Amino acid sequence: MLKRYLLAPGPTPVPPEVMLAMARPIIHHRAPEFAELFGKVREDLKWLFQTRNDVLILASSGTGGMEGSVASFLSPGDKALVVNGGKFGERWGKLCKTFGVQVTEIKVEWGRAVAPQMVADALKKDPAIKAVYVQASETSTGVAHDTKALAEVVKPHEGTILVVDAITALGVFDIKTDAWGLDVVVTGSQKALMLPPGLAFVSVSEKAWQMADKAKNGAFYFNFKKERESQIKNQTAWTPAVSMVLGLQEVLRMLKAEGLESVFARHARLAHAMREGVKAAGLSLFPKESPSDALTAIAAPAEVDGQAIYKNLRVQYGITAAGGQDHLKGKIFRVSHMGYMDTFDVITTLAAIEMVLKGLGHPVKLGSGVAKAQELLMAKACPPA
Amino acid sequence: MLKRYLLAPGPTPVPPEVMLAMARPIIHHRAPEFAELFGKVREDLKWLFQTRNDVLILASSGTGGMEGSVASFLSPGDKALVVNGGKFGERWGKLCKTFGVQVTEIKVEWGRAVAPQMVADALKKDPAIKAVYVQASETSTGVAHDTKALAEVVKPHEGTILVVDAITALGVFDIKTDAWGLDVVVTGSQKALMLPPGLAFVSVSEKAWQMADKAKNGAFYFNFKKERESQIKNQTAWTPAVSMVLGLQEVLRMLKAEGLESVFARHARLAHAMREGVKAAGLSLFPKESPSDALTAIAAPAEVDGQAIYKNLRVQYGITAAGGQDHLKGKIFRVSHMGYMDTFDVITTLAAIEMVLKGLGHPVKLGSGVAKAQELLMAKACPPA
Repeated sequence: MLKRYLLAPGPTPVPPEVMLAMARPIIHHRAPEFAELFGKVREDLKWLFQTRNDVLILASSGTGGMEGSVASFLSPGDKALVVNGGKFGERWGKLCKTFGVQVTEIKVEWGRAVAPQMVADALKKDPAIKAVYVQASETSTGVAHDTKALAEVVKPHEGTILVVDAITALGVFDIKTDAWGLDVVVTGSQKALMLPPGLAFVSVSEKAWQMADKAKNGAFYFNFKKERESQIKNQTAWTPAVSMVLGLQEVLRMLKAEGLESVFARHARLAHAMREGVKAAGLSLFPKESPSDALTAIAAPAEVDGQAIYKNLRVQYGITAAGGQDHLKGKIFRVSHMGYMDTFDVITTLAAIEMVLKGLGHPVKLGSGVAKAQELLMAKACPPA
Repeated sequence: MLKRYLLAPGPTPVPPEVMLAMARPIIHHRAPEFAELFGKVREDLKWLFQTRNDVLILASSGTGGMEGSVASFLSPGDKALVVNGGKFGERWGKLCKTFGVQVTEIKVEWGRAVAPQMVADALKKDPAIKAVYVQASETSTGVAHDTKALAEVVKPHEGTILVVDAITALGVFDIKTDAWGLDVVVTGSQKALMLPPGLAFVSVSEKAWQMADKAKNGAFYFNFKKERESQIKNQTAWTPAVSMVLGLQEVLRMLKAEGLESVFARHARLAHAMREGVKAAGLSLFPKESPSDALTAIAAPAEVDGQAIYKNLRVQYGITAAGGQDHLKGKIFRVSHMGYMDTFDVITTLAAIEMVLKGLGHPVKLGSGVAKAQELLMAKACPPA
């Protein structure tokens, strides 16, 4: 027997309360009960997104939300600026090309965050750019880009929207959609929202809707304008993933009960303990700056294959983490602390990393990273009874 | 949000596979499908109990199995010898008195195992004793009694049966029912059998059935003879707990897939790591000898209230463990490693104990117990890929 632990940066563990909610009977999506449910989760999503605008709910993975965020706003020949600091930045570029959008790419060294001034310069150089695409948290490198600062740079450009992939950011750390002026914010169900994969969520500002009015991209399934027309009536354009919406209702209830500030504080506490634990175990963080609180990307020690660490976490200890992608394959491995995570998920992860490294012959002191995390986590625990 | 961990010596965590099996539709208990299911689990229980005799399945907690093991075999005025080395030994005495059985009690200091010679002496002194009642694992003290040695002592007495409460022993460590000659072995569903509370299981030898033929105790619900007449036809005397039987089928499938030797080895590995981890953290085990592999009873440090440790594990860290009972209240606390348990349950438990103790002002070195457990557990992990 080997107990299984899901500690990858998505999908993340689903709480039992949510699994139970999803086991409830299917509601027909044109029945009044569904409209009532849908209306409720739409309201609660506004709270989660910190927006007064509608948040669309799509039956797709997060990438579907990203596709619609290109296809619904831009037309072939339009210009877009893409911040590419990893696998998911790269994806924005591929999506733009698929829809005939001309891309200017800001290449950011993997492990670093974009300098907002670079975006400012690019927009100044080419005022025809209609949209800026960026990640709030780049999952491939574990780096968070400063979307607040980027929004300040984009805001003065009346014909330009800022589109944020917040798939591993929303519900992890603060994303003030309206207050900061993020025009489009995309997330997925299987990260901090503690659901299985299968839903994408997209908030859209009035500025972005005006752009959607003029878009001619032939978007069909991911046509946000069409979707909005249905969703403001608590319907969906296409058949919704009903069980997922039932689960979402429970997730939003749990998050509201915890409170947004507490949710962010919990992620910050766990992420900090993980990073300090990793360092105390003699390892290095991969990000050179601005680490995301969603996941920690860890540099494999020089003599150890990062893929071996990732594989042995699974084979020897039942832990599913993640390896590195592309040129980082073998160089890094990644562990998550977003979603349904608490103190002992961090302890488990650090203990397992130490054991795997020692098993691979790396001279790590068992318990060294764990002890640091214990110290930091107990300082933030509930007071003794 | 505080994630919950069930690390008490019962109920223990239920694997998701078992929860799913129990969510299946109810089968009517007089339908052929139930008889087929019941026949299958009865066969597999013989494998688990290491017996060729029938294993009765009762809709009750383990205490129901204990009650029937008095009421079904003895008559008012009969004599019994009870080994009382803790709360559950005490319970055998109470049950005997309830059914008018004359009790000779061997009082064993809490924290110690009974010396088989004491049982031999008592049986020699009073050959009229019809039954010897003992625990294979005394949950209140964390001590295992040597049932193999006790069976050797009882076997020569043709008119005496050995009745073993194996509620926190069966499926944890080796209990060779037939080979050792244990006449009656009782267990419950919510311990190593990884089910919710609600079922008891009792194996009965031919010698014990002969005694049951003469018993006049007015047992009704826990009348093993009546129950046997039904169960050999794959029926039950009273309405069975159908969902629990569906879960049991899955549990037995899982245990058979793991293999009995591997199940025992896993428990031994986890228990050893827990005990050595506890000691490495500067704490003392409560048992003076023969610690049970089901749970570890830990002495609270002199200046710390054991109940405070137990309470703070729950309040501060979401971990349900157990305190001490009766005169041990405040002196010890208990943690389990039986059932659906693996490496990181031990790591979590030790990390939490260290954090609670440090939080209560006890000078414990964070990570000290964890590191010892890591070292021992990694030595037994699957080989690196």
